[in-house]
Amino acid sequence: MEEFDIIAKHFAPLAIGEPGALGLTDDAALLNVRANNQLVITSDCLIAGVHFFPSDPPQTIARKALGVNLSDLAAMGAKPRAYTFAVAWPKTIDDHWISQFAGGLKSAQTEWGVTLIGGDTVATKGPLTLTISAFGEVNHGKALKRSGAEPGDDLYVSGTIGDAALGLTILSAATETNEGDQYLIDRYRCPQPRLTLGPKLLGIATSAMDISDGLVADMMHLAETSNVSAVIDTSLVPLSGPGQHIVDQKQEAMNTVLCGGDDYELLFTAPPSCREEIQAVSRQLKLNLTLIGTIENHDGVSHVRIVDQDGNQFELSGNSGYRHF
Amino acid sequence: MEEFDIIAKHFAPLAIGEPGALGLTDDAALLNVRANNQLVITSDCLIAGVHFFPSDPPQTIARKALGVNLSDLAAMGAKPRAYTFAVAWPKTIDDHWISQFAGGLKSAQTEWGVTLIGGDTVATKGPLTLTISAFGEVNHGKALKRSGAEPGDDLYVSGTIGDAALGLTILSAATETNEGDQYLIDRYRCPQPRLTLGPKLLGIATSAMDISDGLVADMMHLAETSNVSAVIDTSLVPLSGPGQHIVDQKQEAMNTVLCGGDDYELLFTAPPSCREEIQAVSRQLKLNLTLIGTIENHDGVSHVRIVDQDGNQFELSGNSGYRHF
Repeated sequence: MEEFDIIAKHFAPLAIGEPGALGLTDDAALLNVRANNQLVITSDCLIAGVHFFPSDPPQTIARKALGVNLSDLAAMGAKPRAYTFAVAWPKTIDDHWISQFAGGLKSAQTEWGVTLIGGDTVATKGPLTLTISAFGEVNHGKALKRSGAEPGDDLYVSGTIGDAALGLTILSAATETNEGDQYLIDRYRCPQPRLTLGPKLLGIATSAMDISDGLVADMMHLAETSNVSAVIDTSLVPLSGPGQHIVDQKQEAMNTVLCGGDDYELLFTAPPSCREEIQAVSRQLKLNLTLIGTIENHDGVSHVRIVDQDGNQFELSGNSGYRHF
Repeated sequence: MEEFDIIAKHFAPLAIGEPGALGLTDDAALLNVRANNQLVITSDCLIAGVHFFPSDPPQTIARKALGVNLSDLAAMGAKPRAYTFAVAWPKTIDDHWISQFAGGLKSAQTEWGVTLIGGDTVATKGPLTLTISAFGEVNHGKALKRSGAEPGDDLYVSGTIGDAALGLTILSAATETNEGDQYLIDRYRCPQPRLTLGPKLLGIATSAMDISDGLVADMMHLAETSNVSAVIDTSLVPLSGPGQHIVDQKQEAMNTVLCGGDDYELLFTAPPSCREEIQAVSRQLKLNLTLIGTIENHDGVSHVRIVDQDGNQFELSGNSGYRHF
């Protein structure tokens, strides 16, 4: 099928409902931004063999590509509106695959409340490469940023940590899987952007980001952008049932939990005076929001100190990588 | 170099001047859209070996990737504001290459008045793959679309047609080149988005698009979207000096002119009452705007009729491809 046929058959239906998409037949799309709002823009690229397995179901590849982008909007406290989708297909991708992929996008965009408004499809001799740009709105000047954490703030994560990285380990081992394994694999393949949480944190959180590179690495990014240091108590880091089960069997798996990526949970900071308000949000959304540490002053360079239940400490610093002491 | 180092060294400098880019250190960017304006959004993907030669200078690859996106904004009559840039690099790309590429982006964005506000860099085992999303603004409801052409409208193109496709032919032949050849190669490598023209056509043109797939194919796209037919008189199609020189030597080259792509000139329609106004715009911008044909009623399906100077007619129809009669 030619590019225009693929767009007309599989993708134009995803643009219904947004007049500014112009049926995907024009040079560009038009988007109205409400007065007093800012547009929030993110763009992420996913490659087969790097960000997902080429053999993953097309529906979950679509869901992940859209989900990781919307997760960035959630981290800013934005309400998602629309997305564009540029894809480079290898020749091995056929009409059936594209149909399943478009079905995955359809189901994800319906669940998450966004509409396709444009994009591009091209052929490649390389691996399947998906670039989504996602657009959301937030009240002017209110967006959550990585830069607002203050010494004395509490440090929180949403949901459970490490599931996706453990799921990736299981997929990479390619052994038979049980129900708990499948839960972790699903967490790797189908991240759930915290779209209801992000906007609820506006006016509460002092900083926020989504966890894509791993809890420790992303904590470091947040600490550096905010010019602070942080302490994480590993005994407080929330694990899922299947995640806890693996860590109970193999203590080293805790490294995967702390340093693995792809969870797309939110990491955020807030003053201790907000504890009750945050637990009210947690109850309302039926989503665990767990206090895992504290923001501290830094001494010229940002540090992330990790304390485990036996009192061992590990430290990551802004310009020296991991340091063990 | 790691992703974060590449961004900090080469790309963060391109985000200076737009506070909403947040120094490329946050999850997403923030963009303010003026009241009464709509945001115009486009996204194009370019792949080495498809849209440019891997051996092309990094500066021209950068310029083309940004230029073809801004051309879509120009076609809607929008004023460009900002762009995101997602890239999948093969391992053969080194720091020197990236530095030259970023230099090309810098020079192009300065000339065209846009700022980098976000993006993503990942590694790939495939070819260099660049996806840019570009953002512009236009007064609410005023954007030029492909859908407004009316029977009786004049049909115009900007600049000269066929240069890029002839340049590609020369590059593909890989023979020695003269000065005229180099002009055509530059037109292929460095398209000039018609950013000053697009906004000037607001309130004049009834429809517009940029010519990326070739004059005939894009005329067909416009005709189908507007539900009209069109006649193009090939003897009126404006050629550059070097383009005319090649056609004079080899008449078949006229097929390349009419059907080759990558010119990124604007194709637009306007009522005959606007002829003087359009020539005034042409003089003001020092850019040829040439009347090449007419819009007609269609008989249930859109046709593009091409008439040459000897009175030969070729016809393209919406559902039958080329037809010779």
